[in-house]
Amino acid sequence: MRLHTAPDHGVVGAVATTISQAGGIVTAMDVSESSHERLVVDVTCSASDADHAAVLEQEVDALEGVTVHKTSDRTFLLHLGGKIEVASKVPMRNRDDLSMAYTPGVGRVSSAIAEHPEDVWRLTTKGNTVAVVTDGSAVLGLGNIGPGAALPVMEGKAALFKRFAGIDAWPICLDTQDTDEIVRAVELIAPGFGGINLEDIAAPRCFEIERRLRASLDIPVFHDDQHGTAIVVLAALTNALRVVHKDLDSVRVVVSGGGAAGTAIVTLLLAAGVTDVVVVDRQGALSADDESLTGAHRQLAEVTNPRRATGDLHTVLTGADVFIGVSAPRILQPEWIKDMATDPVVFALANPDPEVDPVEADKYAAVVASGRSDYPNQINNVLAFPGVFRGLLDARASEITIEMLLRAAKAIAHVVQDDELNPSFIIPTVFHPDVPKAVAAAVRGA
Amino acid sequence: MRLHTAPDHGVVGAVATTISQAGGIVTAMDVSESSHERLVVDVTCSASDADHAAVLEQEVDALEGVTVHKTSDRTFLLHLGGKIEVASKVPMRNRDDLSMAYTPGVGRVSSAIAEHPEDVWRLTTKGNTVAVVTDGSAVLGLGNIGPGAALPVMEGKAALFKRFAGIDAWPICLDTQDTDEIVRAVELIAPGFGGINLEDIAAPRCFEIERRLRASLDIPVFHDDQHGTAIVVLAALTNALRVVHKDLDSVRVVVSGGGAAGTAIVTLLLAAGVTDVVVVDRQGALSADDESLTGAHRQLAEVTNPRRATGDLHTVLTGADVFIGVSAPRILQPEWIKDMATDPVVFALANPDPEVDPVEADKYAAVVASGRSDYPNQINNVLAFPGVFRGLLDARASEITIEMLLRAAKAIAHVVQDDELNPSFIIPTVFHPDVPKAVAAAVRGA
Repeated sequence: MRLHTAPDHGVVGAVATTISQAGGIVTAMDVSESSHERLVVDVTCSASDADHAAVLEQEVDALEGVTVHKTSDRTFLLHLGGKIEVASKVPMRNRDDLSMAYTPGVGRVSSAIAEHPEDVWRLTTKGNTVAVVTDGSAVLGLGNIGPGAALPVMEGKAALFKRFAGIDAWPICLDTQDTDEIVRAVELIAPGFGGINLEDIAAPRCFEIERRLRASLDIPVFHDDQHGTAIVVLAALTNALRVVHKDLDSVRVVVSGGGAAGTAIVTLLLAAGVTDVVVVDRQGALSADDESLTGAHRQLAEVTNPRRATGDLHTVLTGADVFIGVSAPRILQPEWIKDMATDPVVFALANPDPEVDPVEADKYAAVVASGRSDYPNQINNVLAFPGVFRGLLDARASEITIEMLLRAAKAIAHVVQDDELNPSFIIPTVFHPDVPKAVAAAVRGA
Repeated sequence: MRLHTAPDHGVVGAVATTISQAGGIVTAMDVSESSHERLVVDVTCSASDADHAAVLEQEVDALEGVTVHKTSDRTFLLHLGGKIEVASKVPMRNRDDLSMAYTPGVGRVSSAIAEHPEDVWRLTTKGNTVAVVTDGSAVLGLGNIGPGAALPVMEGKAALFKRFAGIDAWPICLDTQDTDEIVRAVELIAPGFGGINLEDIAAPRCFEIERRLRASLDIPVFHDDQHGTAIVVLAALTNALRVVHKDLDSVRVVVSGGGAAGTAIVTLLLAAGVTDVVVVDRQGALSADDESLTGAHRQLAEVTNPRRATGDLHTVLTGADVFIGVSAPRILQPEWIKDMATDPVVFALANPDPEVDPVEADKYAAVVASGRSDYPNQINNVLAFPGVFRGLLDARASEITIEMLLRAAKAIAHVVQDDELNPSFIIPTVFHPDVPKAVAAAVRGA
């Protein structure tokens, strides 16, 4: 907080006391300006979350002789000027350097690519570059906030690509939410990129965009919210079932949420050998018997729910072995887990607020996972996408197959050794150095 | 060159001798494999140009017991894997870092931008980022080589943006040469960028693309082949006239070439006060009297050639003070310069081969400039575009005005001090540290 206060050092002391009493932790108080009229004081302190920070600000502002002029926090400060930059990999010290990296030397390189188009993979950044493309229509849990507001997320993604897989990714935030325009824009920018990572595009639009781009482009197209999530869920489920000694092909799975992630999870689970999956959406269980279903939900119903179960989430959950939520906050009451089969597995992945509080779920379930970083077993896409694209680029793959996704999931699961495996450790940390390498090798192999 | 030779060190000696006798300079001979059957020898040597290198290769390959297996050169080696990369500006060491740069922290930043869209300039890379956009239709002197082959040039440009102005530029190579599609693609990707640098797009398409994008976008759009060239030409002309003691408003100027660069140069010269410009194209002088002219050429004719001159280049050049060529190789015979006014100024800017050999032109002209780096007075766009965009981004400009271009030219011209000015030094080197700063300040001021 930057405060304007009366020129009285007693006031500064009162600020510190007030913050401490409200549960904040003061790190520093810097007087950055001092005159006879006022002091300008920069207070640095820790709060437990944004709400707490707001309370601290309020309490300080209420003090006699103190005005809070401005507040910022470390997350906002970190974002000033953005999170990524472009760097030159070649020296630019003198004329000689310039004559190679730019004219006239670069002309020979361009001519070579014009003659042998495949050389673009070797002589440019294309072979290590991914476009992170969004229309800003389904950003995190924030919804349709548009392309500009989505940019910090895409920059973060680009930074993660570099950190975990050495990949150069650049955000492309599209000023349209029209399916045809999105498809065409990505087709048009494709020549400079080795892969396309679709990100935070709303369902069902995202399905068609991905399908059409996969058909038209000669580089891989991956919608991370779908397939990244599906890979990590399958990896976590594989290990959760190792913990409870059940098999993929005999468990009953309930997936809550028939959107982008839910659909991709179902597809991958079926490919992995799961036979009994029921998808539950707002209207209840999706069933092929339900004549009212159309489009993506009809397709989902056709390949799932072999017992033609009907009813709401609680009904369908009875006797199930696995709950996977990619839907909405607090729709699963913890007590319902008692009605599941023995040793139930609960993945509550809605962000930022899960379908059920993991701590509550833990009272009834054998294994619990969530999307949250402050509980064990975080289902985090960062485990998948860097390695997936590393493998794709290394293999110069032109498409992504379900075999690659299956192998990637297996690779993540197997980073957790038998003697490490337990209900609180079914999935490795994103900082485990083997993860991206193992995933890349699996994808390359496929 | 990687050679396969007979396992006889006498042969290796013969290679060195052969290269030297053919005018090459041997730097190193590394035997990288040795067996009873053969040696693999890597020879590093300097050649004067690509043709000479081909001769050296031929002579070595003709030697008894020697096969040239592969050749490469430093320019191609420099391009392996591309010239630019993405770097993270924020640490990604631990969970705490991730929770700020990515979820959940980034969500608050995105929400803030959704609420206050202007904050995208402050909290993302947008404010320091330029898209370098091409359709690959007019790349250097190579012509229509397509978007993939254009990529090395765009990467070089991005590297120059960083080197000379700290700007993060990313290449966007479009897989279309349709005006409507190019315009729409740029509009769609615009939210993530603070400016658009159009590059190597053929005339007359480039005029319409630039005009339409300037109308629809709220960020500046600059076609470097037009305005970058025009700025540097005006800067050089300003100083050339200082050398010969003539004034901009009283000289007669002949511009050869009515394409993108020629049109922009004429526009800027007129804005700078030049009153007598005649444009000569393949069919001769453009004149408003010529009823056959249409489109861009008609518009050019309307604003130039006040004396309604007609005829070919040689005719029009008679009595002119300044020749500016942005057209084709060797179309100006050196002797014609004798027919120009006293102290003629000749800018022969066709790339890579100028309208007239600068050495020949120097015999008759008072001041000669070219686009070549191996003669004095190189007219190089690198003098302009980094500083122009630095100024635009710093000012958060939404458009580019002719006033900015005029001031930028003046700024470049004035980096050359009075006591430095002479016929061989009318323009500063691109490495002069004052150039981008002076240009940025001029643009920002405007």
